[in-house]
Amino acid sequence: MMKVAVLGASGKLGSVISDAVDAADDLDLVARIGSRDSLETLVETGAEAVVDVTTPAAVMENLRFCIERGIHAIVGTTGFDEERLATLRGWLDEHPRVGVVIAPNFSIGALLMMQLAAKAAPFFESVEIVELHHPTKADAPSGTAQRTAALIADARREAGVGPVPDATTTALEGARGAEIDGIHVHALRIRGLVAHQEVVLGGVGETLTIRHDSLDRASFAPGALAGLRAVPAHPGLTIGLEHLLGL
Amino acid sequence: MMKVAVLGASGKLGSVISDAVDAADDLDLVARIGSRDSLETLVETGAEAVVDVTTPAAVMENLRFCIERGIHAIVGTTGFDEERLATLRGWLDEHPRVGVVIAPNFSIGALLMMQLAAKAAPFFESVEIVELHHPTKADAPSGTAQRTAALIADARREAGVGPVPDATTTALEGARGAEIDGIHVHALRIRGLVAHQEVVLGGVGETLTIRHDSLDRASFAPGALAGLRAVPAHPGLTIGLEHLLGL
Amino acid sequence: MMKVAVLGASGKLGSVISDAVDAADDLDLVARIGSRDSLETLVETGAEAVVDVTTPAAVMENLRFCIERGIHAIVGTTGFDEERLATLRGWLDEHPRVGVVIAPNFSIGALLMMQLAAKAAPFFESVEIVELHHPTKADAPSGTAQRTAALIADARREAGVGPVPDATTTALEGARGAEIDGIHVHALRIRGLVAHQEVVLGGVGETLTIRHDSLDRASFAPGALAGLRAVPAHPGLTIGLEHLLGL
Amino acid sequence: MMKVAVLGASGKLGSVISDAVDAADDLDLVARIGSRDSLETLVETGAEAVVDVTTPAAVMENLRFCIERGIHAIVGTTGFDEERLATLRGWLDEHPRVGVVIAPNFSIGALLMMQLAAKAAPFFESVEIVELHHPTKADAPSGTAQRTAALIADARREAGVGPVPDATTTALEGARGAEIDGIHVHALRIRGLVAHQEVVLGGVGETLTIRHDSLDRASFAPGALAGLRAVPAHPGLTIGLEHLLGL
Repeated sequence: MMKVAVLGASGKLGSVISDAVDAADDLDLVARIGSRDSLETLVETGAEAVVDVTTPAAVMENLRFCIERGIHAIVGTTGFDEERLATLRGWLDEHPRVGVVIAPNFSIGALLMMQLAAKAAPFFESVEIVELHHPTKADAPSGTAQRTAALIADARREAGVGPVPDATTTALEGARGAEIDGIHVHALRIRGLVAHQEVVLGGVGETLTIRHDSLDRASFAPGALAGLRAVPAHPGLTIGLEHLLGL
Repeated sequence: MMKVAVLGASGKLGSVISDAVDAADDLDLVARIGSRDSLETLVETGAEAVVDVTTPAAVMENLRFCIERGIHAIVGTTGFDEERLATLRGWLDEHPRVGVVIAPNFSIGALLMMQLAAKAAPFFESVEIVELHHPTKADAPSGTAQRTAALIADARREAGVGPVPDATTTALEGARGAEIDGIHVHALRIRGLVAHQEVVLGGVGETLTIRHDSLDRASFAPGALAGLRAVPAHPGLTIGLEHLLGL
Repeated sequence: MMKVAVLGASGKLGSVISDAVDAADDLDLVARIGSRDSLETLVETGAEAVVDVTTPAAVMENLRFCIERGIHAIVGTTGFDEERLATLRGWLDEHPRVGVVIAPNFSIGALLMMQLAAKAAPFFESVEIVELHHPTKADAPSGTAQRTAALIADARREAGVGPVPDATTTALEGARGAEIDGIHVHALRIRGLVAHQEVVLGGVGETLTIRHDSLDRASFAPGALAGLRAVPAHPGLTIGLEHLLGL
Repeated sequence: MMKVAVLGASGKLGSVISDAVDAADDLDLVARIGSRDSLETLVETGAEAVVDVTTPAAVMENLRFCIERGIHAIVGTTGFDEERLATLRGWLDEHPRVGVVIAPNFSIGALLMMQLAAKAAPFFESVEIVELHHPTKADAPSGTAQRTAALIADARREAGVGPVPDATTTALEGARGAEIDGIHVHALRIRGLVAHQEVVLGGVGETLTIRHDSLDRASFAPGALAGLRAVPAHPGLTIGLEHLLGL
């Protein structure tokens, strides 16, 4: 049974993931580590893998500690730029058996939504993205919507598909959304919603719509657990849980 | 049986409405009048009411002819500003038995969507509009979306409801849509679609969505026919079919 | 400030409503009463109104106690048949200033969904209901779906609208759903969902869809609070919060 | 430029496909063949491939004629059972360069919807299918829904996923739909609709919905044309356009 510790266990997401690891028959939760706890606990408890859901300020130090001690990591923390990724690759070169997965999204449903949308996009003339979130979210469009637009634009370019048709000549001001890499994104902010996204694709006489609804933070646990189970077989740096899950 | 003529009968919409009048048991289609036909045909055939689906350039002359001869009119043609409406009221004052209905939308479904959305809007903190059309449409957002936003904003003001919540602080460029009277509107342009609109309302823990899908021009006929049946009982100028249909 | 007590306050729904009453500026939560607490607390604390979210076994005794002491009640508890309602009317006849509201649904969104669907139903040839819930729900279709079907069937009968069109001649077995009063209801049970319902209406060339999504038990609080504020002005027995809310 | 004939060209679908072949730059429409026309026209015009959208009574004779003369066929006609497929394989064994594609569905959107749903199904606990059609359709559920259910059931079995959760203990009568291979299917019949299908998948805290809307028969042409372009490279019998299109 794999021994797992959660870094950032006192946060909302960390708490959900800790409980899910604890409840899993094939995983052994050995430590819930908060910001005031020592990383030495990882060594004392014999942790073989961690889930890191801490902060951009803390995550690099955490990962150096883990990599040097042969502990795998599934990382939900944000803020990884090219420089940080290069640093991680350097550390991993010296410890080639360790696996680190940078996972901007733990939701299997969101990952599938992006993958399926990118797969379908070259088969349709038109595609636009609508993302819907609670009105206390500060950024628009969402990071997931921006990644989806980039994946779709890449897939269409690779397949040699031209730009989406658009005859708009008159327009008004003030829309919340964006055009990203030629793909229109619309951002709704509605009380009562959690995190939702719809990709609308259309060709002559038909449309295909792929929608993901995240209703509860609990949706992030299954992806984190699946990542833990798969990471020992994926040494080195992996960007995106989808590469471990066979999506 | 009411004798009905269609002005603009050679256009696509005029053709659909002419066929529907022809097929109705309680209406008698006496003339399909195209742009080259004389209005005198109305007199010769004894038309009691017309449906006008011509052009902004032709419609005022048509209506003067009808009003002066006691012929009711259901008008789907666009381009009515305050000046034109005042002119119509002047003509109707002199012929007080005649009814003229300016109907920006013949679709009963679209009218209901707008009415229901305006009725529901004061009960929710948040509301946004998503309109979806084929990519050859030149204007964005659609006229229907703009009217819906105005109706919703009016209903909320009247009920004393404050502005919708929105914490967006970072934003990107290029969205297709608008903020109209404080209400966000998003405009999608997708091949394969016809004319669709969704109003998303949200309060604590719940959302209400009202969606209208127009899949075929045939959807415009039932509203025009219902208008014809009701117009004799509604002399003077009426703006909006909804006032005749008891929506 | 109205003094309010919650009966059944230790349950999940009772807890949410107690917290919402507590947080409201114009309501004073004077008691959270669980199954082991004495109703005398209501008298001691001077409660002017209660929300009852207890059990069918307890609710009648609770209501008799309240009515006899002049305490208004908003009742979310289920299990009211004609006999129980007649009993309540008898008690209220002797205390004509007291208001009791039997509210099968506290969600303003769900109430609006039902009202709007019933209003729209006579204008369309076709209408069907799709309800979607979590897979641990024991009854199918949901009570809300059954009430919606009955409201729609009533509205169509009253308007003289005929039966919905259906040419199905071959069919398979095992569907989860029902035909209620001539209206087809479909019941989906999907992990991850909470409580959702969609009414799909259709006429020539167009459809209208009204959808309610309940994502969180918190959605039941605003209706209960609005009921509390309105009940003093509605003495006697009222069935359905919608009559107090002007929906 | 490939010389193409359409068999069943006087039907609605045949007419749409003939026009699309005619309009394509890389295909040459050499014959529109109706039920009274001779198959010899195929030889006279030098047709290299046909699209057959005729009737179950006519299709086998058409295919024998084509296979014996080295003419490829894309077949949208229904009614193929194991016996007919075996017969076709026998004929094709003697003419190994000829390709015949039995295509129960020409819509690329519908094919993608089925493929994506089958791909996603093993990752979610729950899955159900909702299909929506016009109310003059005689069979329920649709053939597409039945195929989708079978594909989903296969994919889940192969992945070792257990049955969908369902706690329903009380149920009513009369639902239109089915349980197919353990997958619930719901069939809506609504005036104004054409052909639509939604697959709803759900896991802890999240759902994924894949929806296909077919609004116009024109949506069947692109799949037929793509099939024509690919069939020379796919000799023998192929069941399903998806195998030629790289979906």
